[in-house]
This record gives sequence, C-alpha cells and structure tokens, in this order.
Amino acid sequence: MTNKLLLLTKDNDHYRHLLEQATLPQLTILDDDPANIRTANIWFAEPALAAPLIVHASHLQWLQSTFAGVDKLIGKNQRQDYLLTNIKGIFGSLMSEYVFGYLLAHQRHHAHYRQLQSQATWRAQRFKTLQGQRLLILGTGSIAQHIASTAKHFGMHVTGINRHGNSVNGFDVTAALNTLTLHLPTADAIVSVLPSTPHTQQILTAPVLKLFKETAVLCNIGRGDVLDLDALSLQLHSKPHQLAILDVFSQEPLPTQHPIWQCDNAIITPHIAAPSFPEQIIDIFCRNYQHWLAAKPLEFTVNFERGY
Amino acid sequence: MTNKLLLLTKDNDHYRHLLEQATLPQLTILDDDPANIRTANIWFAEPALAAPLIVHASHLQWLQSTFAGVDKLIGKNQRQDYLLTNIKGIFGSLMSEYVFGYLLAHQRHHAHYRQLQSQATWRAQRFKTLQGQRLLILGTGSIAQHIASTAKHFGMHVTGINRHGNSVNGFDVTAALNTLTLHLPTADAIVSVLPSTPHTQQILTAPVLKLFKETAVLCNIGRGDVLDLDALSLQLHSKPHQLAILDVFSQEPLPTQHPIWQCDNAIITPHIAAPSFPEQIIDIFCRNYQHWLAAKPLEFTVNFERGY
Repeated sequence: MTNKLLLLTKDNDHYRHLLEQATLPQLTILDDDPANIRTANIWFAEPALAAPLIVHASHLQWLQSTFAGVDKLIGKNQRQDYLLTNIKGIFGSLMSEYVFGYLLAHQRHHAHYRQLQSQATWRAQRFKTLQGQRLLILGTGSIAQHIASTAKHFGMHVTGINRHGNSVNGFDVTAALNTLTLHLPTADAIVSVLPSTPHTQQILTAPVLKLFKETAVLCNIGRGDVLDLDALSLQLHSKPHQLAILDVFSQEPLPTQHPIWQCDNAIITPHIAAPSFPEQIIDIFCRNYQHWLAAKPLEFTVNFERGY
Repeated sequence: MTNKLLLLTKDNDHYRHLLEQATLPQLTILDDDPANIRTANIWFAEPALAAPLIVHASHLQWLQSTFAGVDKLIGKNQRQDYLLTNIKGIFGSLMSEYVFGYLLAHQRHHAHYRQLQSQATWRAQRFKTLQGQRLLILGTGSIAQHIASTAKHFGMHVTGINRHGNSVNGFDVTAALNTLTLHLPTADAIVSVLPSTPHTQQILTAPVLKLFKETAVLCNIGRGDVLDLDALSLQLHSKPHQLAILDVFSQEPLPTQHPIWQCDNAIITPHIAAPSFPEQIIDIFCRNYQHWLAAKPLEFTVNFERGY
C-alpha cells in the first residue's frame, strides 16, 4: 500500500524539497489541493494549522507534529482516533542558549555596560556569578534536563518540579508540583518549560508570583497560559529588581497594547527560543516513517490523556 | 620566626578583616605605614601597585599576587630574587560566564529583539545556534580549558592554540602559535586568554586581523597588548558583521577619546570578565601560607622566564 502524505506547515516548499531528497519508499507526497485533506493517511503538520481541518481527515492514521507543543490538538472534544507524534530531543540545547544567554546578560549587567560605553565611561559594577545560585525548573523532561545540565556546568543548584515529584537524573532535587510554593521563595531563577495541560494552566497566579524573591528572574519558554500575564505585569512594576524573560504567551502574537511590552524589567521575544529547524524535523519524520513501514512503535508518541 | 605581611591592594581593609578571621599562625599583619615596605617578608599585592615599590622591599621573600596577570612584575630589569605566586583555577567559570553571555547575546540577537520590543513588534529573526560553530581559543591553560568545556557543552568545535602545539585535554584540536594564521579563516569565534609576554604581544596585527571571517567574533579577555587596537577599530568599521568583545586594553582605563568606544560592533567592558573575589583569593593565600610555614612548594608559582 502506498502512503499518502499531506504537508501542512508554513514552509511546505522547503519541507517538500527535503522529503523528495530523502526518497522514502511507498510514499506519495500530495500537493496542497484541499481535497487531499480527505485523501492523506499521514499528516506532517503544525498543530495550529492542523487543528481546524482535522475533522475532515477521513483517512488520517498518523500525524507527525513539526512542533514539540501539541496542545492545539489536545482536548476533550478533539479526535483521538489517530497516532499523534511530536518532536523531542532537539530543543534542549537551543532552549539552553536562550535561557543562559538572557540569564548571563542580566547577571553580568550587559545593559549597564552598554549604557556606560555610549558615554565612554570606564566603571566596574559588582555582579553575582551564577555559581551557587538556585535554579528552579518547572518540568523535568528532555528540555528541562538539558537546561539542568547547562546550569550544573555553570555551578548552579538545580531543583526540578514534576507532577508527582519523581526523581530524575541531572537535578539536585526533584519535587512534586503541589509543593511548588515551598520552593519558589528560595529560587534565584525560575524557568518554566511546562506544556499546556489542565494541570499546568494558571499555576503561576498573582499570589504564587508574590512568593518570588525580590531579585528573582522568571523565564517562560514552555507555554504562555502557565502564568497570569496581567498579574506578572503588575508585579514587575512594583518589583524593579525582578526580571521576566518571556518567549511564549497565551495569545500570540502578544497584542500590541499589552502593557508588558513597555515594562523595563521584562524581556519579550516572539516565540523564538527553540525554533524547529526543518532538517532536524525531517530527520525525525524519516526515522518514524521507517518504523511506520515496519509496523514498529513510533518515536515521541503523544499521550492524549496527559497532553504531552 | 614571625612572618611580616604587607597588604598592597585597593581593598586592604576588607582583606585585613578576612585575614584576621583566618588567624594564621606566626603571622603579623602590618599596617599601611610606608616604612613597612622595607620590613615585610611577605607581600599580598596587586601587581600594578607592587611594581613601583618592590625595589625598596629589602626583606621580600614571597609575593602573592591577588591577580592572575602578573606582567607588571615581569621583565628583564625587574627583580627575580623572590617567590612570585599568582591566582589560578578560580577564573575559568567567571570567564565562561562573560564569554558565553556576550556570545549568546550576539548569536541570539538580543539587541534586535530589544529594539523590536520598544516598538511592541512581534517578528522573529533567523539565527545561528552555537552548535557546530568553530571556536578558536588562544591559550590552553586553566581558563582556556574551562571555556573549552563550556563551548563543548554548547556543541562547538574547539581548537586551542599554545606555544608549541602541545596536546591538551578538552580541545578537539591543539596547534602551535606559529600556525595561528592557518586557523583564523575558519574560526566563527576567537577568544584570547593569553597573558602578556614577549611571545604574545601584538600577535593580532592588521594583516592577521584581516584573516577573520566576515562574521567572526573576537573576544579578548587576556591582555590588551595581544592585539593592535587601532587596527581592529579600523577593521570593525569596514566589516559591520564582525564583532569585538573587549574587556582588556593596553592602557586601562581605555582613554575616553579612543574611537572604539563608539564602534557599533564593539563591546567595551572595564576589565570585569573575572574579578578576584576576596574570599577566594584569601583561601588561596591561606593554603599557600600553610605550605610556606611547612617549607613546602607553593601553589601557582610564576616562572619569571615564561612570564606566567
């Protein structure tokens, strides 16, 4: 039987080219005719683009997400009668670049020295090294583990939070999500890599954010709805020594009028911490397609109940 | 015999306090009376402060530098009739924070996103991950080794340059200083941690700097006189995609009128990459003082011929 593949990404031409080069057996790559939504048995798709169309996918057996986050395809009223796989394992080092780039820029006073340089002024400023600082990571999966390994390299103490507090290698401490409020007051930096699930939405609300240290740095690179952005924005105005580094938002693009854009102690980036590089995504798809042909279990299968 | 210790730092009160707490045996900590320059047999000193006074030090046996760089005390006409020890092993992680903070800020377009944020504009920019990039480190000592380990963590390919090309653990390749020009054209980033010695002064002159890639990043955290700053300043104006990150200069403070202050693709910081934290320096002195009392070899002895 020939498999029929539908591409549903913002970069279909590039992906089509890479897939043709891969010359996968028993695979027809369909063109972008909407009729192919019904025809295809395999989708290679961005979750947000796939979500509104998936009800029409009469022959869908397997959907390979091009992203790690698949929350747009998860929910009570959504289809669950197909195999959903996502991308894992390639984002950790990109996320570490993002987190530690901004964390070091803050600790080592890049903005201050940029200002002094514009005045040709030579003046040193005291700083805190990352060594010995406490990092709290919300999440302990592959991305969190990579960030933890970078933090250990820089001499930090690392606590990881997961649902049940299961022990995970690479963390100094792991703890359950329901003990989060006990760990926040001592954290120098808090990084959330949590997916959006019913258990993670709005866990960082106003009273929880108030537990942060006066100098805490919050970095959100998971999903925007983990936190109450309005509450955070208010808090940052009254806590000038705190910093928020935000790459993900409940509504993306972040609306132009949101006050947090203009907040001096917030850094806003447009969901760029760990983009999917097409060559790496295609590698994962090709490996999974070989498993598919051999009727073997696919890699990175999403559990519809857990949501990741 | 009681040892007589002279403090000669910009932070004498702090160091005196820490030393008193350490309650070292057979040690008198002298006060700051200039007459004590003749009396003391041990100096705990910043090289630049010690250099003009050391000819008067009639009883000097051992000088513990509070810095790694001791070039102010090295040279043909300088005294060599005492033990000179410096500080090693504590600067690597601070240097890595500095180098990778600025390298990531550049690669991940911090300035660009800061600008977009001020306009409340959501727009992603392509970037190059550090993974797979080539780092050339001038130097292979303890600081260079630490930077190499951080670079490997971020997935870079690391070449180390030392005088004779001796193999050193933690580098993908090591090569001799006289092959430097062969390695520059392929380097994405070049970091110099070289001390100032007759073999390292002015090795990065105009024709050598011209070998850099169009997008090369140069980071100097060793000594300023390794490079021709005027030549670099000129080159940066004609190579807008190159970047220089400079923490050390032949003349410090860097003169206000030097054009490189105003260079858009230069980052100037006031010799802050790896300051000496007093507590750590005192730890090293106390360990060495115990060796001294026991007539054992001291740690981190400087070779006057090599200059480090």
